[in-house]
Amino acid sequence: MGRRKVAVLGATGTVGQRMIQALDGHPWFELAELAASERSAGRRYADAVEGRWKLEGGIPDYVRDMPVLPCSPDIESSLVFSALDSGVAGPIEDEFADAGHYVCSNAKNHRMEDDVPLVIPEVNPGHLEALEAQKSNRGRQGFVVTNPNCSTIGLVVALKPLDDAYGARRAHVVTSQAISGAGYPGVASLDIHDNLVPYISGEEEKMEAESRKLLGSWENGFRYASMGISAQCSRVPVIDGHMEFVFLGVDDPADVDDAMRVMEAYRGKPQELGLPTAPEQPVIVFRDDDRPQPRLDRYMGSGRAAGMAVSVGRLREDTCDDGLFDYKFVVLSHNTVRGAAGAAVLNAELLEAEGYLR
Amino acid sequence: MGRRKVAVLGATGTVGQRMIQALDGHPWFELAELAASERSAGRRYADAVEGRWKLEGGIPDYVRDMPVLPCSPDIESSLVFSALDSGVAGPIEDEFADAGHYVCSNAKNHRMEDDVPLVIPEVNPGHLEALEAQKSNRGRQGFVVTNPNCSTIGLVVALKPLDDAYGARRAHVVTSQAISGAGYPGVASLDIHDNLVPYISGEEEKMEAESRKLLGSWENGFRYASMGISAQCSRVPVIDGHMEFVFLGVDDPADVDDAMRVMEAYRGKPQELGLPTAPEQPVIVFRDDDRPQPRLDRYMGSGRAAGMAVSVGRLREDTCDDGLFDYKFVVLSHNTVRGAAGAAVLNAELLEAEGYLR
Amino acid sequence: MGRRKVAVLGATGTVGQRMIQALDGHPWFELAELAASERSAGRRYADAVEGRWKLEGGIPDYVRDMPVLPCSPDIESSLVFSALDSGVAGPIEDEFADAGHYVCSNAKNHRMEDDVPLVIPEVNPGHLEALEAQKSNRGRQGFVVTNPNCSTIGLVVALKPLDDAYGARRAHVVTSQAISGAGYPGVASLDIHDNLVPYISGEEEKMEAESRKLLGSWENGFRYASMGISAQCSRVPVIDGHMEFVFLGVDDPADVDDAMRVMEAYRGKPQELGLPTAPEQPVIVFRDDDRPQPRLDRYMGSGRAAGMAVSVGRLREDTCDDGLFDYKFVVLSHNTVRGAAGAAVLNAELLEAEGYLR
Amino acid sequence: MGRRKVAVLGATGTVGQRMIQALDGHPWFELAELAASERSAGRRYADAVEGRWKLEGGIPDYVRDMPVLPCSPDIESSLVFSALDSGVAGPIEDEFADAGHYVCSNAKNHRMEDDVPLVIPEVNPGHLEALEAQKSNRGRQGFVVTNPNCSTIGLVVALKPLDDAYGARRAHVVTSQAISGAGYPGVASLDIHDNLVPYISGEEEKMEAESRKLLGSWENGFRYASMGISAQCSRVPVIDGHMEFVFLGVDDPADVDDAMRVMEAYRGKPQELGLPTAPEQPVIVFRDDDRPQPRLDRYMGSGRAAGMAVSVGRLREDTCDDGLFDYKFVVLSHNTVRGAAGAAVLNAELLEAEGYLR
Repeated sequence: MGRRKVAVLGATGTVGQRMIQALDGHPWFELAELAASERSAGRRYADAVEGRWKLEGGIPDYVRDMPVLPCSPDIESSLVFSALDSGVAGPIEDEFADAGHYVCSNAKNHRMEDDVPLVIPEVNPGHLEALEAQKSNRGRQGFVVTNPNCSTIGLVVALKPLDDAYGARRAHVVTSQAISGAGYPGVASLDIHDNLVPYISGEEEKMEAESRKLLGSWENGFRYASMGISAQCSRVPVIDGHMEFVFLGVDDPADVDDAMRVMEAYRGKPQELGLPTAPEQPVIVFRDDDRPQPRLDRYMGSGRAAGMAVSVGRLREDTCDDGLFDYKFVVLSHNTVRGAAGAAVLNAELLEAEGYLR
Repeated sequence: MGRRKVAVLGATGTVGQRMIQALDGHPWFELAELAASERSAGRRYADAVEGRWKLEGGIPDYVRDMPVLPCSPDIESSLVFSALDSGVAGPIEDEFADAGHYVCSNAKNHRMEDDVPLVIPEVNPGHLEALEAQKSNRGRQGFVVTNPNCSTIGLVVALKPLDDAYGARRAHVVTSQAISGAGYPGVASLDIHDNLVPYISGEEEKMEAESRKLLGSWENGFRYASMGISAQCSRVPVIDGHMEFVFLGVDDPADVDDAMRVMEAYRGKPQELGLPTAPEQPVIVFRDDDRPQPRLDRYMGSGRAAGMAVSVGRLREDTCDDGLFDYKFVVLSHNTVRGAAGAAVLNAELLEAEGYLR
Repeated sequence: MGRRKVAVLGATGTVGQRMIQALDGHPWFELAELAASERSAGRRYADAVEGRWKLEGGIPDYVRDMPVLPCSPDIESSLVFSALDSGVAGPIEDEFADAGHYVCSNAKNHRMEDDVPLVIPEVNPGHLEALEAQKSNRGRQGFVVTNPNCSTIGLVVALKPLDDAYGARRAHVVTSQAISGAGYPGVASLDIHDNLVPYISGEEEKMEAESRKLLGSWENGFRYASMGISAQCSRVPVIDGHMEFVFLGVDDPADVDDAMRVMEAYRGKPQELGLPTAPEQPVIVFRDDDRPQPRLDRYMGSGRAAGMAVSVGRLREDTCDDGLFDYKFVVLSHNTVRGAAGAAVLNAELLEAEGYLR
Repeated sequence: MGRRKVAVLGATGTVGQRMIQALDGHPWFELAELAASERSAGRRYADAVEGRWKLEGGIPDYVRDMPVLPCSPDIESSLVFSALDSGVAGPIEDEFADAGHYVCSNAKNHRMEDDVPLVIPEVNPGHLEALEAQKSNRGRQGFVVTNPNCSTIGLVVALKPLDDAYGARRAHVVTSQAISGAGYPGVASLDIHDNLVPYISGEEEKMEAESRKLLGSWENGFRYASMGISAQCSRVPVIDGHMEFVFLGVDDPADVDDAMRVMEAYRGKPQELGLPTAPEQPVIVFRDDDRPQPRLDRYMGSGRAAGMAVSVGRLREDTCDDGLFDYKFVVLSHNTVRGAAGAAVLNAELLEAEGYLR
């Protein structure tokens, strides 16, 4: 029984490169096709990506000589990963789904649509039920499943166990986001060297809206979580790893030790199903004062799941005694692994395990 | 009429160096004496500080040959700036005040004491009235006046006009603090390169406590402001300039344009008195989405006041509609100028102008 | 007697911004006109440059509202500074010179032409004699004078006194160049963060060729210096300040102390004439082992000449005893001040003082 | 047949941590004992190293609970790796060797001694013959073998094939060295952020002397290579990976393509013997203009040998035509892997394979 052949759309970009890494040696999926924009199509992958491969370790050998195809739905692979830029992703992904492909997308375009699942497998696997509606609404055999924005994922994976246990009510979050999140060439060095930028276009809106969809439910329609989320996003001079500072108010608080245990004990569908890219423990809780840190801890998780575990640290009671907020803590997650390429691959693994890929 | 002779204690450290810069060519004060630890005492300043002067522009020529004295109260200058390390500052500053010196201290040791003013001249000049109590309590002719921690000052200068106008009730703040705040050698490069550290020992406690003292009043005793403040502090790879992300709830909110005007229109005693190191406009409000930024904006203010203006940006309504918080914004201030050396000098100018130095 | 009105072409780029700074409050020149590409022309300067002004300190107030003109020779100012990109500079500068303007250019296009002076005022002011040939050859009333590439200038200012004293024969140089040298957006942060790049397109060729023109002479034609120069250029994560590591062989070596004295004692035409932007001492020699350093020493020189002095350090004998090379040392110069904008302004001051501007 | 038990001295430092990584899962060696200074001795390793483990990936689980022993020769392991600081390494290593241990040292103390092999297995495996002299001279059963300084190794691995083929005569080298080379806390962030430091104490002397020992031979005494080497060393803001810029003169130059082939074809004893930590190809030659780069290429080599291959790039003819130098190129090697911990482990593997460990 062979591995399922898969394709990556947008294979030359920062997230596409991470997808190629994430699929290298995958037990279920075989990277069979690469596609990218017209500028790259028709070229050998190593030539098309020349000067733009920015990951340690280089291009896997078997990928170097693969041809880059245009992003057209006559691609053979049934399962397609989209690392396309949001400027073009929307209609292309629709075209693929209409042609019967299963699209796991990292792009923002379809995330908030009424019949498109926005999924973190540990958090809301049940949202996949929306796929029936999507197929029926749109008269398509294929479908589009999306993963959230890179800054949303870390936050929501950390919030989910606390929400389940205590009822999350209000979260304030400030992010310190890595430069790889902006792609390549992305952030100019003159903009970020010895500096930070207190603004990332559209990021706060995405975090606020996506989180409430993810923590909500599917009941023949998406019901958004009622919790309030207010975000401030910034860019810092770090290659990989988004750090987030969270203030959280809940309905029924317990003490800090209990909250730590709740986070550490949390397991979801991917752990239950033993998905290949799933970390054994989705949330790692640090007890040292000064951890996690991006450079040291961004690759938490082991083997295929390196970079898929979310780290939490400095979990403590909120300082004020007005009862509005209960906890303060920091969250770290790898923005292009757990926050992008690995997220899409984990979604595909869930789809496969749950029988959505026929 | 000559300039008043002044001394700097702890003259070889990071803050001491900034004090020397801030006093260079000062119209009211003449840097006459330098003192430091026993290790440095007895040496020429340029020799004592060799390899540790970390400011662009080098040591002013006339300072290079000044002798470094021990930190003993037989120093002649009546006005003394303390840039001493908190490990030794407490008793030394007391000794100087007991001997009749006027001590403007940047150290944390005495800040929270019941008869020691903790002062930002724009914010709470009236706290100087506590000096009478200090002299009488302690039977001294001199006194100690302190300025706040580097991360507190930016926050409080920005909060003050909003507190006056609308009544500040609750603030959440996350800081991204520069490495110069930790002195020299301070933060190891292996700890902060391609990284950030979500913890600074004691920093959050200082911000939370000092802010409430500063925004409170002196009524024959310090009355702390009732507002709640909850902080999370981090260190980032930036040389100078602390950035802070604030969520603020107030009693009587106005719209964002009004809040901007309130901040821009704010003037305090230093502006009224025309103190030499006072910025014309204490709070600069940026309207561009992506400003202020540390590297570009840390030296706001002009001439002697370069680095003394506090920058605010991204002032907007809070996202949630539960009425708990009203505004979100970012604050930038130069941590070793407005947040340390310049703060102490501005305090001294206020003391001089108000007749506290006889 | 008023100041001469001047224009800056390419005013919105990194070098153009530095030119505006360098001309702010200039005693001889008044910045009267700004010009840039069609995209910017017709707009207010502050609007045209929005989001691209990358210098500490902001746009001078009087410049913010100046209109941006197209780069057309009906500009009124006789003296014109060109900070144009080399993609367009060549024909535009010719057009201006043909129309009678005096063009001081930082662009590479005309530097190596047979009748165009490539000038560092301390090094080869006599090359201005070539202007007569240029006017006559090209039948123009105006002219083009150029300054060298940013990495060439520091090297040649440091070599000149040694060449005069001992006869330079062979130099090897390795550069560590700042990111501002690539303009904006220039170097992507993903390319230079926690990294260095051992290549800058065309840079080595420029250093090798320009240095020999600069150290040569004008004798009714340029005679290039016979010395050999071999360069290796790299980009490092530093905002401003090019560091260069030099191995030098000379004809008649003296000891290291003598070489230091020769460098420190060096003065040229700009010092003799008291040009406003000339540093008092063109070459500063550090004796500390670990200096100069870019962050601490890039602004050597004072007042208007801040950033115009070239720093030399670690001057020592070469290690090998085969007699091929004699000295090793490092050179630091500010790449956008001494290496670009300040270089052009100093050339203009020399032209003014020597009567070349009628 | 079990694995040989080994100990690491100086196990808590930067190089000691890399040794632990390099020995994790080693097929021949089993990490059985850890030793460190008195301050750490007696503690659990994870406690002793707390806050100082600076490698991505964390402490291997089985190492966390190992006790830290004092550095005393009653350690049981016959094979001992020394990552000791040079302030203490000399006498401790002698004590171990006198007690019969086989010491593979990364410390500089014994490197240049007359009967101590300084070895890079690809370059001069024959120097191990000196061990007989060492044992006999010193009346010891054990011995000390050393590996070179981190900046020497990359240079010499790259020079060796060219020296063999063409006869190296003169090399100039400028280094851009990573901060991890200075240990922890090592370089202060205020010293290296937005900066570089053109000096590393003792480094140039080590490169110049060690290279000549390594490229020389053992003929009942070390004969040093006659080639001349002149170095300039600097520190740059890069975590790992030393870059070196080389100018090389040889006796019998061939063209650049030939030189590239010579480097790529080079194999040594470790490749012949199939040592576990040996890279298949010791020297990787890049043909892209802008490679190698530290962040992208420091881990060249695969599996256990990741970080053990040395990268060469920009190999080209020297610019000058005076015949003194022939080639210019850059070299990159991982300073704490190939340049320290991996170097010591590879030496031990060579000793094991060649029967020096009985």
